[in-house]
Amino acid sequence: MRIALDRDSQTPLYRQICRFLEGQINNGGLAADTRLPASRDLAVSLGVGRLTVNNAYAELESKGLIYRIPGSGTFVLQQSPAQPAEGVAAGIESLPAWQQALLDQPGKSAAQRQDELIESARSAGLISFAEGGGDWHLFPQDDFRKALMTVLKQDDARVLSYGDTAGFLPLRQTISRILVSQGIPANQEQVLITSGSQQALALILKQLVPPGECVLVENPTHMGFIDLCHANGVRMLEAPLDEQGMLIEAAEKHLNSGRVRLIYTVPNFQNPSGACLSSGRRRQLVNLAAAYGVPILEDDFVGDLRYKGQAQPALKALDKSGYVIYVGTFSKMLIPALRIGYVLCEGPLYGRLLAAKHSADIGTSTLMQRALDAYINVGRYEACLRRARSVYGRRRQAMLTALARTMPRGVTWSSPAGGLFIWLKLPEPLTADDLFVRASAAHVIYTPGSLFTPTGAPSPWLRLNFALHPPPLIESGVQRLADVIRRVLSP
Amino acid sequence: MRIALDRDSQTPLYRQICRFLEGQINNGGLAADTRLPASRDLAVSLGVGRLTVNNAYAELESKGLIYRIPGSGTFVLQQSPAQPAEGVAAGIESLPAWQQALLDQPGKSAAQRQDELIESARSAGLISFAEGGGDWHLFPQDDFRKALMTVLKQDDARVLSYGDTAGFLPLRQTISRILVSQGIPANQEQVLITSGSQQALALILKQLVPPGECVLVENPTHMGFIDLCHANGVRMLEAPLDEQGMLIEAAEKHLNSGRVRLIYTVPNFQNPSGACLSSGRRRQLVNLAAAYGVPILEDDFVGDLRYKGQAQPALKALDKSGYVIYVGTFSKMLIPALRIGYVLCEGPLYGRLLAAKHSADIGTSTLMQRALDAYINVGRYEACLRRARSVYGRRRQAMLTALARTMPRGVTWSSPAGGLFIWLKLPEPLTADDLFVRASAAHVIYTPGSLFTPTGAPSPWLRLNFALHPPPLIESGVQRLADVIRRVLSP
Repeated sequence: MRIALDRDSQTPLYRQICRFLEGQINNGGLAADTRLPASRDLAVSLGVGRLTVNNAYAELESKGLIYRIPGSGTFVLQQSPAQPAEGVAAGIESLPAWQQALLDQPGKSAAQRQDELIESARSAGLISFAEGGGDWHLFPQDDFRKALMTVLKQDDARVLSYGDTAGFLPLRQTISRILVSQGIPANQEQVLITSGSQQALALILKQLVPPGECVLVENPTHMGFIDLCHANGVRMLEAPLDEQGMLIEAAEKHLNSGRVRLIYTVPNFQNPSGACLSSGRRRQLVNLAAAYGVPILEDDFVGDLRYKGQAQPALKALDKSGYVIYVGTFSKMLIPALRIGYVLCEGPLYGRLLAAKHSADIGTSTLMQRALDAYINVGRYEACLRRARSVYGRRRQAMLTALARTMPRGVTWSSPAGGLFIWLKLPEPLTADDLFVRASAAHVIYTPGSLFTPTGAPSPWLRLNFALHPPPLIESGVQRLADVIRRVLSP
Repeated sequence: MRIALDRDSQTPLYRQICRFLEGQINNGGLAADTRLPASRDLAVSLGVGRLTVNNAYAELESKGLIYRIPGSGTFVLQQSPAQPAEGVAAGIESLPAWQQALLDQPGKSAAQRQDELIESARSAGLISFAEGGGDWHLFPQDDFRKALMTVLKQDDARVLSYGDTAGFLPLRQTISRILVSQGIPANQEQVLITSGSQQALALILKQLVPPGECVLVENPTHMGFIDLCHANGVRMLEAPLDEQGMLIEAAEKHLNSGRVRLIYTVPNFQNPSGACLSSGRRRQLVNLAAAYGVPILEDDFVGDLRYKGQAQPALKALDKSGYVIYVGTFSKMLIPALRIGYVLCEGPLYGRLLAAKHSADIGTSTLMQRALDAYINVGRYEACLRRARSVYGRRRQAMLTALARTMPRGVTWSSPAGGLFIWLKLPEPLTADDLFVRASAAHVIYTPGSLFTPTGAPSPWLRLNFALHPPPLIESGVQRLADVIRRVLSP
């Protein structure tokens, strides 16, 4: 153990040692029953006499902070937990000015507020429709563990070294093959692997939209993108959407203003609304982007998860003039902990993003990329998709049926053709924000729609994830929610 | 396979199909010998007649792009590679304006230039002193593979799910225990785990220094931090350093100007100079920070790798007023592919960084964090350190001895007490940049000092990593370098 001692100080050395240890015991840095170094050893490593350390230990013992077991050692005594309330209150005034200045910045992110809501509702028997991903019971966990084991058993040091910042080349090839099979022109030189699609969005936004400038978003939209805009000081101009996706006229009005630097869209089974941009609007949007010279960021987080109707072409597949930047991910369909997403783009932007990726974190874990590449190929990806489509398709139907059977008059909801989410509107004057506490008391939760809007204002909308539970749980959860709404409407 | 078809277009459907496939075959998206879907299957998935697909395939075959093996299928024919030069030349003019604007931004990052230099020198028998890490032969690879296997065998879905954005709690506890054992006050609530220390630097810089504002850096300094400043539009004010570290008078002059928002320092065995900030300057710097109200970012990338002399206290350990933000990493000492670093800080900054981390990539791989936690504890960390100290200490001595024996008069170098790097100065009028091509022709390379300065101007300095090779290779490499220098000095 090392301790910073000031040999010029008027405070005796034994007391400096005592103070450091006392501070660490009180703030939890040294947990109960941690063994302290033998006084002889500590004396050597601090370059002080053994008596000095003994004096420090004696003082700590007299304060009830440590105990000795003869022949065994010196240990930290369990402390009553510090009072955080008092500590914080005292703390704010005594903070340095640069820390206090941080308090003036905007408050919690939407993602943090969502986490807190989910945490606040935690209870036995809770049915949550709030999370944003798929059902982890369906993830190919065993197969992926096997792939990881296989990669680890290869006696190849490169498995555990820094890799190519652009990503592991064979994985980039595999991704480009999957994209081509979906009708999206791609080759491995245009694929950049990122730590989840969230990092892809972060790098692109930062590269293309300086602070104070504007991005066009759907309203509502993905909370992770809203948080990014807030974090980067980027302003959001909003285009509303209906079940056919973004309203193109509204988008064009904003483009006409000349202030838009980037169009962000989730064309397939949008988060949170579940809307799917129609074929006609896709062509209009791509043409508008070219006409106004504004690039499109296409976030295709669950594009292939369609349960009915014909697949729509990706905007990237319709783009003849190089205006679309495509972002995808494996976190929703395969394994969340993968943290592997990707960007498909070309031209100078690719090099910019590569440099930004290096600055951000040097590169995504080589091991995870190799394991994913060992696991995935076009056929396996399609098999995963088929399985998820079949299971989630039944769950979607179960939730739609349950909603129709239980919800009181005045409640309306979307009927998405794919994805994970149903978007539900409460009758006036209810807001999903106010209803949340009652719902969570009835052991059912959702994500309030306010978290998907730039302003965060209370909203009658809420998002239900239908993919998380088997049909019987979906039916119970929807029933509970309907009962809560009914009780509030007719108390 | 899906292909975006425009049914309103005047281009016949068979030709649209043909064009997509032709484009993908020519740009490499469909590799040689890839099997195309059977015409019947493709017709069904595109919703067109089988004759349409047959027509498309016939046209591709007549163009020499595909071949058929009766009874086996239709395959992509090997294409001669595209001419990239022509492609790029044609490309730049035809790029959309938003892409052309990106070309006006500053050029390659220092890290990219380093990668290119190393790549350009790749040859059989090359001895490289250029890389920035430790020797991967010494990494505890087998033990870490075992830890990963153990974690994977735990039948716990959380291993492969999203984790806590702040990091896996037991690992945060382990890190805080390691820090306390080094005399740095810490508890797990103050530790935020990041994807390598590079991400920690990125998050902190972005949080504390708005674009256009200034950060005080040592000159020379860590190229990853220079790249971050350029990427964020942050200006660097430079304080020179000597073998005792940053010159405090120069630092105070800049602080006096009132423009500095953050002080960035690598106090231990600095990258690239190997300098170690003296005990007295450490106290002065911490006091200056408090006096001027400017926080310090302490990057302790190899702090414990000391081969001689007494350990200096971390700035964080001397900080009584909450001005020091401490960043550490496991990539240099353990496994680079871990991509696990951490920040130790408190107050409002912690919450800000947590939100920024969520926006950046949601969280660091849970699996890697669990494996690291299964592997590491205070005792094991110290055992790794002892081993690295012993091996690298001998290599440091081997390089210093070889330099003294071989270098011509006029060449000078540092004698670092720890870390990985020796900082060498060529006699006038040589620059390390000019010498690089000759050195790499003689199969020895280093990192030019210009990459460690904000301006990137040619420099007589160069960085040698002494930790990468066993002594005989170090001696050969230094001998080659000395020969190159001697030949240039007396041609």
